Amino acid sequence: MQDDSPLVRRHDRDGVTTLTLNRPTHFNALSEEMLDALGGELDRVAADEGVRCVVLAAEGRAFCAGHDLKQMRTTPDEAYYQWLFARCGAVMQAIVALPVPVIARVQGIATAAGCQLVASCDLAVAARSARFAVSGINAGLFCSTPAVALSRNVGRKRAMEMLFTGEFIDADQARDWGLVNRVADDAALDEAVSELTASICAKSAVAVRTGKAMFHRQLQMPLDQAYTYAGEVMARNMMAEDAGEGIDAFIEKRPPEWRHR
Amino acid sequence: MQDDSPLVRRHDRDGVTTLTLNRPTHFNALSEEMLDALGGELDRVAADEGVRCVVLAAEGRAFCAGHDLKQMRTTPDEAYYQWLFARCGAVMQAIVALPVPVIARVQGIATAAGCQLVASCDLAVAARSARFAVSGINAGLFCSTPAVALSRNVGRKRAMEMLFTGEFIDADQARDWGLVNRVADDAALDEAVSELTASICAKSAVAVRTGKAMFHRQLQMPLDQAYTYAGEVMARNMMAEDAGEGIDAFIEKRPPEWRHR
Amino acid sequence: MQDDSPLVRRHDRDGVTTLTLNRPTHFNALSEEMLDALGGELDRVAADEGVRCVVLAAEGRAFCAGHDLKQMRTTPDEAYYQWLFARCGAVMQAIVALPVPVIARVQGIATAAGCQLVASCDLAVAARSARFAVSGINAGLFCSTPAVALSRNVGRKRAMEMLFTGEFIDADQARDWGLVNRVADDAALDEAVSELTASICAKSAVAVRTGKAMFHRQLQMPLDQAYTYAGEVMARNMMAEDAGEGIDAFIEKRPPEWRHR
Repeated sequence: MQDDSPLVRRHDRDGVTTLTLNRPTHFNALSEEMLDALGGELDRVAADEGVRCVVLAAEGRAFCAGHDLKQMRTTPDEAYYQWLFARCGAVMQAIVALPVPVIARVQGIATAAGCQLVASCDLAVAARSARFAVSGINAGLFCSTPAVALSRNVGRKRAMEMLFTGEFIDADQARDWGLVNRVADDAALDEAVSELTASICAKSAVAVRTGKAMFHRQLQMPLDQAYTYAGEVMARNMMAEDAGEGIDAFIEKRPPEWRHR
Repeated sequence: MQDDSPLVRRHDRDGVTTLTLNRPTHFNALSEEMLDALGGELDRVAADEGVRCVVLAAEGRAFCAGHDLKQMRTTPDEAYYQWLFARCGAVMQAIVALPVPVIARVQGIATAAGCQLVASCDLAVAARSARFAVSGINAGLFCSTPAVALSRNVGRKRAMEMLFTGEFIDADQARDWGLVNRVADDAALDEAVSELTASICAKSAVAVRTGKAMFHRQLQMPLDQAYTYAGEVMARNMMAEDAGEGIDAFIEKRPPEWRHR
Repeated sequence: MQDDSPLVRRHDRDGVTTLTLNRPTHFNALSEEMLDALGGELDRVAADEGVRCVVLAAEGRAFCAGHDLKQMRTTPDEAYYQWLFARCGAVMQAIVALPVPVIARVQGIATAAGCQLVASCDLAVAARSARFAVSGINAGLFCSTPAVALSRNVGRKRAMEMLFTGEFIDADQARDWGLVNRVADDAALDEAVSELTASICAKSAVAVRTGKAMFHRQLQMPLDQAYTYAGEVMARNMMAEDAGEGIDAFIEKRPPEWRHR
């Protein structure tokens, strides 16, 4: 029996767009179709000026178990695999390039490209029972593309331990290593995510969007270039109506009223 | 009533130069005048061969609350802001480029460009009650230039959490994340700073100066270039009188007598 | 009385090659001869397809105390020092470039270039009583080449604190900062190392070798290049017999049988 429900559900409320991976029976594996669905939703969100931040969530007991291995085995062709990993890499980079912050909401397991999804998000909140692994090595397939994202979140010896052993780390370990920001009791996961989204939605939209793009770009520059670039961005940010209002409100000790809420 | 006391006080003792931000009633905000004063002192210290290390301190209840927002609002002009952030970035980079180590001595709050000052120093010691935030986002102004320094001190998800939420972290959190080295009871802050300065002043001046410049430069190179460069620096360091004396002293199990103390 | 035993002992068992620094009376100092011996062994291991992973161990009470300072002082010549540090840097980079993972097994002290050895390994396990320092600064010689490896393992303020003060950190601190992966009771050190080597040896050799080379190379690329490169590597990895077998075994819920064990 085919599942006709959408692969990725989108839900919008008060500026928060929640994208939910919706194939719980397949542990939300990143099949071609799932990558297309997620990539398409990210494209639409990128063009939607009403979105203030995105929550990347998943239905069921697992967050995401990585690529769809069965599907991959049906086309044992190097050109196909190149295409597939390029497609997956493009989706991961679309998260980084999205104009607004993306928060992973993680329950259950996040393995291989599922762990990469968490690493690719700007922020992440995990249920206390969540676990993380880059476990491709157990199946003879080193998690090369997940390593790209993981090694930009955690120290290199920790990344290599996870990649070579394929072993799980728990949520507290993931937080201590910097892969996730916050850990909540399983029953309080949505509340912990809401705290972050509420904090971001209370800010000026133009400042948040300015910051997200700036942050990732300056990280890849040497110090002097990063300062030149960041200074120019910040000067433009100062010319926005919201910065004037925000600073005046700060000086006058009153809450700011942003132009775009 | 105008405050005629110097914006930055300089105090020298036993090779330790303490620069103290001295506008406690303004939370030591980095006004144009404060940036000029600090930049000027850093230039003078850079040319002073008698200085062994620098402590960057601040008078009053706050370390530094960042830019002077009132002053910024009086000239709402993009070219002015570009100039201002470039000036600020130059002062931050002057700390990194200073020939000797710079240690932040942090009490109270260090926010926005004040947090950037801490991140830009080579080492930092915080009072247990100190708190850190990049809070421009609360005023509609994303802390873009502070992000440059912060994201080179702490992991990217942690930096983004601070930048998007504007929330404070306490001193222990700052130490656990790598933004400060040591946390001391408020009453023992000077003692903790003195331990570090005493340790550095007991070393060979030429070795310390060699190391400071080398460290920051190699960090921005790929591995093979970094090794080539570091090897050349270390070979020159070996030819210095102090290295010969230091190694001989080590071999002979006696304290070294440095040429320049 | 001259010591005719080999400077570096090699021992092979079940795919694990253990290289043991064997001058305990000299705290396994990295003399010219020791660097040649270690470099030679690494070259031979690199060409040996039967090796699955390498343990870098050391005989006696110390892991490694760094360069042989007495020997260095006998040729006070800058060209000689350039050659020596280039030789040492080449050995450190040979560890990074080795086709299989290298695990440091650390007891006692690991100082200066000894600490660099630990930082250069892919993984590290330390005895609880082990201690780490980059202590050249105490002898007037800033640990420039060790800084290259250390600053790619731990945050910059932590690296600078170690480099400027020369102070030791203990094994737990080293683990919390990311310089070592695991800490074991002294009596259980070999057991802890064996856990890691057993985990790696249970994996597909081709996947492990693919991953090691890929990991280090992508770390030095900007994000988009890293993804392009990692995707190509992973597509080739998918074409290897082991990946097919591993994925089929995973799907069929049975243990994989690797081509090359």
